[in-house]
Amino acid sequence: MSVIKVAILGFGTVGEGVYRTIQSHAQELEGVLGKRVEVAAVLIRNKHKKRNINEDVLVTADFNEILSLPQLDVIVEAIVNKEPTFTFLKQAIQRGCHIITANKEMFAHHGNELLELAKHHNVSVGYEATVAGGIPVIQTLRQLLNVNRVHHVQGILNGTSNFILTEMREKKQSFVDALSLAQAKGFAEADPTNDVEGFDAFYKTMILSRIAFGEEPNWEDVEREGITSITSELIEAAERLGLRFKHIASISKKGDQIKASVRPVLVGKSHPFYSIEGVENAVNVYTDLVGSITLQGPGAGMFPTASAAIEDLVYVCQNKLTKKYFTKTPAIHLRDKKEHEDELWIIQGLTKDYNNPLITWITQSSAETAIIRTNTELIKQLISEQNIKCCFQILGEFEIESNDKEVTLAAI
Amino acid sequence: MSVIKVAILGFGTVGEGVYRTIQSHAQELEGVLGKRVEVAAVLIRNKHKKRNINEDVLVTADFNEILSLPQLDVIVEAIVNKEPTFTFLKQAIQRGCHIITANKEMFAHHGNELLELAKHHNVSVGYEATVAGGIPVIQTLRQLLNVNRVHHVQGILNGTSNFILTEMREKKQSFVDALSLAQAKGFAEADPTNDVEGFDAFYKTMILSRIAFGEEPNWEDVEREGITSITSELIEAAERLGLRFKHIASISKKGDQIKASVRPVLVGKSHPFYSIEGVENAVNVYTDLVGSITLQGPGAGMFPTASAAIEDLVYVCQNKLTKKYFTKTPAIHLRDKKEHEDELWIIQGLTKDYNNPLITWITQSSAETAIIRTNTELIKQLISEQNIKCCFQILGEFEIESNDKEVTLAAI
Repeated sequence: MSVIKVAILGFGTVGEGVYRTIQSHAQELEGVLGKRVEVAAVLIRNKHKKRNINEDVLVTADFNEILSLPQLDVIVEAIVNKEPTFTFLKQAIQRGCHIITANKEMFAHHGNELLELAKHHNVSVGYEATVAGGIPVIQTLRQLLNVNRVHHVQGILNGTSNFILTEMREKKQSFVDALSLAQAKGFAEADPTNDVEGFDAFYKTMILSRIAFGEEPNWEDVEREGITSITSELIEAAERLGLRFKHIASISKKGDQIKASVRPVLVGKSHPFYSIEGVENAVNVYTDLVGSITLQGPGAGMFPTASAAIEDLVYVCQNKLTKKYFTKTPAIHLRDKKEHEDELWIIQGLTKDYNNPLITWITQSSAETAIIRTNTELIKQLISEQNIKCCFQILGEFEIESNDKEVTLAAI
Repeated sequence: MSVIKVAILGFGTVGEGVYRTIQSHAQELEGVLGKRVEVAAVLIRNKHKKRNINEDVLVTADFNEILSLPQLDVIVEAIVNKEPTFTFLKQAIQRGCHIITANKEMFAHHGNELLELAKHHNVSVGYEATVAGGIPVIQTLRQLLNVNRVHHVQGILNGTSNFILTEMREKKQSFVDALSLAQAKGFAEADPTNDVEGFDAFYKTMILSRIAFGEEPNWEDVEREGITSITSELIEAAERLGLRFKHIASISKKGDQIKASVRPVLVGKSHPFYSIEGVENAVNVYTDLVGSITLQGPGAGMFPTASAAIEDLVYVCQNKLTKKYFTKTPAIHLRDKKEHEDELWIIQGLTKDYNNPLITWITQSSAETAIIRTNTELIKQLISEQNIKCCFQILGEFEIESNDKEVTLAAI
């Protein structure tokens, strides 16, 4: 076999990016693989739409036509939704094709089944493009994990939300205006629910959890909150305290339990995500040997995502992707906080006369907004009992300027 | 062979870190490699010094004793200086051992010869630990390079210099005081020349250049400047303009030529290195597909560096390290500046009455310090002809607060 035959499922931003990159980087690919990479087929939905695809490529809306090609080595899947994608990929694996996917929703739901099936058929599954676009997060985590034990992973995994939060802070815009701008720029879909309600970040978080810890939490135990409740007033109040809102996914393991959340939090300037702005993504990994490593880069876009998919293409063709099924990692305890240690929270709607010995009032930045130190349990109780408008945790060090008192928190 | 036998050359910070990690992570290593990893020997200088090494390990000052061991699979080298290290490693390769090194000076000088020799003897050379300690820069670059073409690489590669610059700015200390503190904290050697004069960063830059571009510039053409000329007054003047001094290595390819420099520059808040503080290292890679990716983490230290060496150990034992000799990459042109395009410079000692149509005066932040826009050629001429005290280039966007005029520069 002197040619590697590839089929691309979907010809949206990512699919087209993969197609164009295989053309433009043909020489590099041949240099690395010792074989020519050729796009044999593209699966599309609407046969009548005009596309810039070479005439010798099979362009079809019927997946069976692709499956019946005499030679087919790799399928790059860049569609949305779980079905019929999952069914297609199972069929492709059964035919003996390597699989590369950029579809986080499908992979979060069915990744384990696909990996199991691929193992059985002795092919590989690449999914670098499902998390953080062009940033090689998955391979880097795998490399670190050869030796290191992961303590926690946190990430800004949704560029759209980060763009909206940045616009709201920098340009003092409302959520609605910032969202419209994101839509106009092509960062957000017409229906932005997946991005702004945290579903997209949630799926990516579950995929990261499997890599970092070999397993994932029960999905229903994961706190998932989007950015729709964040007002420009809140952002301004935070700004005055030197804090910024970031939509952060975090995963850690305590004992035998994986804890994960995807939610807006406030970060101080010492936090590795304080300067991650606009559509950028970032992932921070804390391990026992290396300590804290942060990777930052474009989390989406035609060529960054295509690059991730094609890095996978190289690995599956070189047979270098670890075929190892996810294995559970032991829990490690690194500078762990005590179970009920207090955290800092910014809170709106709690009256100062509310008296509880477990709450320390740190500062009141406006008539309504206060910073308190307390534990998560009490916060849950307050939200259910009191007239709390909103409440967000603060991560990282920050300095309260009003009274020059430094509040230091480990950046977990 | 059910055991992998390792010899460690040197038992300083890195050597001891490797030794202790092989003990503490024995289970992980056996899990990944399917074989037990055993330290068979440690090369030391002073036989009488007390060390915490198991009794069944050969501890010797005579390298020949190590070479004569009946089984020896991998040598991890963590000494300083080029010789006798280079000679030792050549002998080890000839004996059929894989080599892992953390010695940037030796590898910058003799890396090509070692890789050539290793290829001939069908063994691998790992050198992840030579650049940026625990940050997996080299593997990440290699991964990106499977498909991407690199436009430029820049890095904060010397944690000691970055620590000193951070201390000087944050605590308003002099260079001498900040250096003393770095020495007291163990970040700087008694003779700090290698760090503060930029030699350490220079060697790392040459190694990065080979990976990114397959070749390196003539060493004598590389501008290498340390941080000793930076005064706290300069740092304060820069701070007032929203700029920070960083010691930055940069490498790019124009036409057939590699251009590299290692020098202090000023960066604005949009530059990816603006928030890299203390002993942290960071590497930013700009490629044609992915765009800009930044990796940040601990650039030195016992366990981060040991982790890098042991990741290499896993790769050489799995035979996964690319044995490919460095190949020259084609030059690419990405948003390239014109040959003599103007840059922003902060300059001290140029009198405002100096008239040259090629200089635009942007602002004068103090009696002496000014920001001008001009090209590199003219800067060289000014330095040779005028009474210039110092002159540093400014990278990244920044805003001049005095007149609210935004100066935008591509962060190259």
